[in-house]
Amino acid sequence: MSIHTVKRVQCHLAWDNSIPPALHVQSGDTVTFDCLDASNGQITPASTRSALASLVFAQLDQVNGPVHVAGAAPGDTLRVDVLAADPAPWGWTACIPGFGLLADEFPEPALKIWALHTHGDAQGERARQGEYGYAWFDEERGIRVPLRPFAGEMGVAPAEPGAFSTIPPYRTGGNIDTRHLSVGSTLYLPVGVEGALFSIGDGHAAQGDGEVCGTAIETPMKVTVRFTVLKDKPYVTTPHFTAPNPHAGAEEFYGTTGVGPDIREATRDAVRNMIAFLGKEHGLDRVQAYMLCSVAGDLRMHEVVDMPNYVIGMMLPKSIFLRS
Amino acid sequence: MSIHTVKRVQCHLAWDNSIPPALHVQSGDTVTFDCLDASNGQITPASTRSALASLVFAQLDQVNGPVHVAGAAPGDTLRVDVLAADPAPWGWTACIPGFGLLADEFPEPALKIWALHTHGDAQGERARQGEYGYAWFDEERGIRVPLRPFAGEMGVAPAEPGAFSTIPPYRTGGNIDTRHLSVGSTLYLPVGVEGALFSIGDGHAAQGDGEVCGTAIETPMKVTVRFTVLKDKPYVTTPHFTAPNPHAGAEEFYGTTGVGPDIREATRDAVRNMIAFLGKEHGLDRVQAYMLCSVAGDLRMHEVVDMPNYVIGMMLPKSIFLRS
Repeated sequence: MSIHTVKRVQCHLAWDNSIPPALHVQSGDTVTFDCLDASNGQITPASTRSALASLVFAQLDQVNGPVHVAGAAPGDTLRVDVLAADPAPWGWTACIPGFGLLADEFPEPALKIWALHTHGDAQGERARQGEYGYAWFDEERGIRVPLRPFAGEMGVAPAEPGAFSTIPPYRTGGNIDTRHLSVGSTLYLPVGVEGALFSIGDGHAAQGDGEVCGTAIETPMKVTVRFTVLKDKPYVTTPHFTAPNPHAGAEEFYGTTGVGPDIREATRDAVRNMIAFLGKEHGLDRVQAYMLCSVAGDLRMHEVVDMPNYVIGMMLPKSIFLRS
Repeated sequence: MSIHTVKRVQCHLAWDNSIPPALHVQSGDTVTFDCLDASNGQITPASTRSALASLVFAQLDQVNGPVHVAGAAPGDTLRVDVLAADPAPWGWTACIPGFGLLADEFPEPALKIWALHTHGDAQGERARQGEYGYAWFDEERGIRVPLRPFAGEMGVAPAEPGAFSTIPPYRTGGNIDTRHLSVGSTLYLPVGVEGALFSIGDGHAAQGDGEVCGTAIETPMKVTVRFTVLKDKPYVTTPHFTAPNPHAGAEEFYGTTGVGPDIREATRDAVRNMIAFLGKEHGLDRVQAYMLCSVAGDLRMHEVVDMPNYVIGMMLPKSIFLRS
């Protein structure tokens, strides 16, 4: 098992299986990615709201990679363990006109620059417990946001040829903006092409389920992940994950997602995928699994702003399974 | 302050502001409701799947009340503190043909009868920590569901005349099936008519956000709440609530909801309502509030099966507010 790095400049602006790999690794290898923020460096700690007017949208949401993982073939699953996530000491949140869940009600640009106070423990037990540090939202009013850094973009190249925007999320991942994917979590992605061609980016120091104004605490971030190729999880057809409880380290979840342009259908797909998981991994028949989802699984809207696709998740606490 | 009771037989089958009160109370009073399960007693511990074929749908989802709270007027807010929730020692979960998020994929009726093992501490600190007891989903496989009892139906009479089905949730509450409303939570409802006319029912011993198969662990339940009439919360136009973290007692949330037939619009409404709350209670301007929702508020789908209306929630951890 080797440790590799991908540099800031090793990035691309579309999901496209014809982009040559920046790096070749083996299953079991670990890679650290040095990622700029989602503005691709266009916003800095000195920026003001006027920076939003001159944003070059074609440069946004770059992702670093792609990484070719030997042995990954279409139909396989790429397991991605998030080992460390280290944000810069600053971040930004914006209302970008035309973007966000309430875009019609917030027509004016707005920009907030945050100072991020981290504990400097990006991969230890404290990080796994969700204790990364904090950022003052409004110190005078005593409003403080806990940091829980994660990469908003993690995905593999699609099987279909062509260049697909990095803004929407897809069934192969990408801009899934799933806040639960911080240190200690594991993401499972369906492999579309030989070598998987994994890329990552869009550092978020904190975000709520939904990312409703369209941005999180956006930040440059170094993130370290370990890749494993799995052959025994054909039911992973959208991103699945395990995650520590974002509000209390003691509890872990297993999550499935539905990704698509129709919220209700994406919701149904998240549930279908959990039913499939419960069938394959816990031996439940479909009716049992459906009932268990109803009484113990939580539907969350992980991301509702990167159109045309939504990411809806079902999260099941792992503590209900006493023997696995 | 007085303590009152509403009996099992004091129930009704529609939200209708012409139904005469079962009880008159003062603001500050406490009431214990003895509620049958949502089948209105049609399903018993001895029932089998054949009971679903003969279910009389017109008898389902009865609610107990209404309770007239003196001083409540249209435009006011009824505060409902949930003090105790005591389920029966049994419950049921069903797949009812034509009902549920994946109704088309689960055409056959199915019924599961559960034994509920409670700690008998329906109103103490343990209950507030979410430790009520458990129910085996499958003892052989070691799958156990923690109990967190709550009333799926809590609501007030609508301002509009006429009889409205108790199946869908409304902006005045009703079948909101919001799992977070267990002991220690507080629900805020917009008052539509003089006296509020509160009713409650639909005991759930456990449920996940969404209640995806259409039923929770349905159970007869005694539930005790305290009423307070509030004049200073005109921004409460849909159900709002505070709730202990369902997965860890240490953290509390403030939640707002959107209720309606369009998921996306209900989602937008939940966010709008949180923005209004943050403006009124924490002095944030709309842009600040919108950004705070994006970085720290979680969108959850509390209920997606009681058509035609969905209940979407935004939950903000109270711990981010250091001074309130």
